[in-house]
Amino acid sequence: MEIKLSELINKFGGSLVGKDLIVSGVAPTNLASQGQITFLTESKYKKDLCNTLASAIIIAEKDAEDVTISKIITDNPYWYFSKVSQLFNPRRLVKLGIKPTVICDDDVQIGDSPAIADYVVIGKNSKVGKNSQIHPHVVIGENVAIGDNITIYPNVTIYDNVTIGDNCVLHSGVVVGSDGFGNAPDNKKQWSRIPQIGGVVIGNCVEIGANTTIDCGTFTPTIIHDGVVIDNLVQIAHNVEIGAYSGVAACVGIAGSAKIGKHCQLAGGCGITGHVEIADYTVIGGATGISKSITKPDLYMGAYPFSAYKDYAKNAVHLKNLHGMHLRIKELEHKTAHITGENDDNA
Amino acid sequence: MEIKLSELINKFGGSLVGKDLIVSGVAPTNLASQGQITFLTESKYKKDLCNTLASAIIIAEKDAEDVTISKIITDNPYWYFSKVSQLFNPRRLVKLGIKPTVICDDDVQIGDSPAIADYVVIGKNSKVGKNSQIHPHVVIGENVAIGDNITIYPNVTIYDNVTIGDNCVLHSGVVVGSDGFGNAPDNKKQWSRIPQIGGVVIGNCVEIGANTTIDCGTFTPTIIHDGVVIDNLVQIAHNVEIGAYSGVAACVGIAGSAKIGKHCQLAGGCGITGHVEIADYTVIGGATGISKSITKPDLYMGAYPFSAYKDYAKNAVHLKNLHGMHLRIKELEHKTAHITGENDDNA
Amino acid sequence: MEIKLSELINKFGGSLVGKDLIVSGVAPTNLASQGQITFLTESKYKKDLCNTLASAIIIAEKDAEDVTISKIITDNPYWYFSKVSQLFNPRRLVKLGIKPTVICDDDVQIGDSPAIADYVVIGKNSKVGKNSQIHPHVVIGENVAIGDNITIYPNVTIYDNVTIGDNCVLHSGVVVGSDGFGNAPDNKKQWSRIPQIGGVVIGNCVEIGANTTIDCGTFTPTIIHDGVVIDNLVQIAHNVEIGAYSGVAACVGIAGSAKIGKHCQLAGGCGITGHVEIADYTVIGGATGISKSITKPDLYMGAYPFSAYKDYAKNAVHLKNLHGMHLRIKELEHKTAHITGENDDNA
Repeated sequence: MEIKLSELINKFGGSLVGKDLIVSGVAPTNLASQGQITFLTESKYKKDLCNTLASAIIIAEKDAEDVTISKIITDNPYWYFSKVSQLFNPRRLVKLGIKPTVICDDDVQIGDSPAIADYVVIGKNSKVGKNSQIHPHVVIGENVAIGDNITIYPNVTIYDNVTIGDNCVLHSGVVVGSDGFGNAPDNKKQWSRIPQIGGVVIGNCVEIGANTTIDCGTFTPTIIHDGVVIDNLVQIAHNVEIGAYSGVAACVGIAGSAKIGKHCQLAGGCGITGHVEIADYTVIGGATGISKSITKPDLYMGAYPFSAYKDYAKNAVHLKNLHGMHLRIKELEHKTAHITGENDDNA
Repeated sequence: MEIKLSELINKFGGSLVGKDLIVSGVAPTNLASQGQITFLTESKYKKDLCNTLASAIIIAEKDAEDVTISKIITDNPYWYFSKVSQLFNPRRLVKLGIKPTVICDDDVQIGDSPAIADYVVIGKNSKVGKNSQIHPHVVIGENVAIGDNITIYPNVTIYDNVTIGDNCVLHSGVVVGSDGFGNAPDNKKQWSRIPQIGGVVIGNCVEIGANTTIDCGTFTPTIIHDGVVIDNLVQIAHNVEIGAYSGVAACVGIAGSAKIGKHCQLAGGCGITGHVEIADYTVIGGATGISKSITKPDLYMGAYPFSAYKDYAKNAVHLKNLHGMHLRIKELEHKTAHITGENDDNA
Repeated sequence: MEIKLSELINKFGGSLVGKDLIVSGVAPTNLASQGQITFLTESKYKKDLCNTLASAIIIAEKDAEDVTISKIITDNPYWYFSKVSQLFNPRRLVKLGIKPTVICDDDVQIGDSPAIADYVVIGKNSKVGKNSQIHPHVVIGENVAIGDNITIYPNVTIYDNVTIGDNCVLHSGVVVGSDGFGNAPDNKKQWSRIPQIGGVVIGNCVEIGANTTIDCGTFTPTIIHDGVVIDNLVQIAHNVEIGAYSGVAACVGIAGSAKIGKHCQLAGGCGITGHVEIADYTVIGGATGISKSITKPDLYMGAYPFSAYKDYAKNAVHLKNLHGMHLRIKELEHKTAHITGENDDNA
């Protein structure tokens, strides 16, 4: 497709400086060809502009001064780029219609303009909104309610009693609504399963990465609020609640009944223990384990710093005797105070 | 369904105090409606009982004194609740019969009363016991032996030469029997695959969570014993053995040939290195890496405690010089001993 | 099958000492039966040889002296064993032909001697090379190019615009080409998706473990070079590049644009942060987080050592005050220097 810069501004705001060109695509400075628009999201990369072939740029006011190609000035070039790229690079659409190999059980409702691909199976009493994009081999259980403009990639499984809002994207291998992990030991310490009947409620505009698992709640639902983005291989246990517009990177595990606030960011590989609450706008660093509630938004971190093994081995051994080191320092403080005649504050 | 308290006692034991009511469901104190039975599993939640609408309760003797609704007294209310909840909330059954889209290769044996859903594929010489519940899109390889009363959720893959006992549950996306990760480097350090032909043996009453992977053994099988419960996104490598009634929480990785005892509990995100043995009844804390065998059952832990980043950064830098701190303390002890004329025990 | 030792030597090199027997299989010393060949990969296991029933052995010169059965002498017995085991234990083949339930969209090209199992779906303009082994329920998107001699296990999903070389193996549940996790916050801190159109390029002889996810790049491809072996439940983010013949164990997460060198080894559960570069031949220990680039190949480690909880708790509390301990030692050094009249090197 081709579009004039002024039309982009009509859609996404910003102001035009320079000629109102037609652009045919968006790309980073080093990849853009003539006729394309590029973008600058951080001032430190400004030096890369001198070699770009792009005909126009999305850029912040502060970086724009000596840039001579056509400019769309915006206070949020990264976001603006995302919108322009969405326009030029829409998702590939599944063919319209319901393929003959699709199997719907009784009382399934499908909204207008469905695109449901081969071998999809939809269970009793489930409904899918309009403009659905369901790729091959998706299995949807019973009593599932899915909103409009959904995209579900191949081999996704949605269990019974799951509700999903509008404009959500579920990537391949996602499992929503599997049993929460609840087991009671009997008197011989053998496990007895606690049925999980709470379902899952997912809001609007939620995106869920490949092979991520979201368990159903025990009695009340696991809840993912509007606009949450979740990466691949994330585990979300029963009765977790994730506040709106939070982002969860890959390989994160969130244990049962943890409540993550709005606009939180959980970096890759971090783990949240069960039943804690994380304040809105909290950021958790990579591979960090959160073992208690966080009431004050900040960046939290707790990953062991790596080093070459021979250094690691020499130092790590003392971790098992840190308390001993503390006691040795205390004893030295006591003796030194005695020698110098000072008060021993640590006595 | 509805059931009398005395019938519950016939099934699960305990003793009735109060009127022998009919109850229609089980729910926590805050969710239970009139006519339902609730439960108290920890004394500290006893204060929540005053507002419950429940008509009866599962409760321990020590907590029961001033509770006025009908009571089932038991020494294990949590387990008792699980059994009552299983009664009220059975799994949704797949429709009886073998759907016409199911494809069975030669010499497949299916037991009585099968419920095998659409697009299931079963390979040569495999057998499935009676009362099977196989959801859509399950793929079962060749020479697989599955016991009675199995439940397999959509999109599960079982490779060749896997044996699964009775009453097991496999959640969506589970893969059982994929190649163990064994590769030998040649003289140019290029990998040559070691065939994995040992299969997998899973006992009775094992439950496996969504997207969990269990690799086959190299020459002898990977073994999961009776009653083991495994959460989502767990990796169980080749030739691992997990003892009966152990529980493995989400995101755990168990490396090759590790042997986990009976009744162990591995919390979320922990990792077990290869070839170690873990004693029966051991408990491993969340995100803890186990790098050597454990012979004495206890709770083991090794996760870096998190803090706000500015505190973390200030402290973590010293981890790379803990040995240096140790040497400085030793030097101070030596000097102080010299000053005071004491023996220097650390010399 | 049966093969003479001299034929093995024709295929894989080495030299024969002893009688040129026919062998019928390969197995470890304790499992081998008469007529089979066994192997010794580490001198410390030599004592196990006395009880073996094997008729021949793959062994290094240094260990061979007093071994009396027929010997194939090689300088790399582990690799030699892998080749012999591949010969005796080939992968089970899918039935030749394209099953009638396979659905190919327009302009799909399938090479000679295909074996494509039930319910496979292949999208428009995709091609698969010769001797393909595609198991049931695999979904391949549009514009996918797959080489010769591929093996794809059940329930794998390959998105659009993925290129895969010859002789690759993809295990069940693998997802290749799902959206990279790129989201730009708007001024209300709500996420806007950045389209991911860079695809994935996978070289020759790459093996990918069950439920592993490989995202497509943003503008340029995510790249996995020749001969890389990847275990289960690994996350490879957008624009990652993994150099030839590297090995990635289970539960590893590699964040966006990280570049892993050739012949690297990443042990189980380790995490690589985004945009770092790891030198060729680097080895990363289990559960270690790599937060910056590594320029010198070595073994790197950074996992918190576990201990019994009561010891852990006593010691770990000091991690939040390591800087305080450092300051206390410094103060003691200052005072002690003052007392003894020495120079205070740390002042």
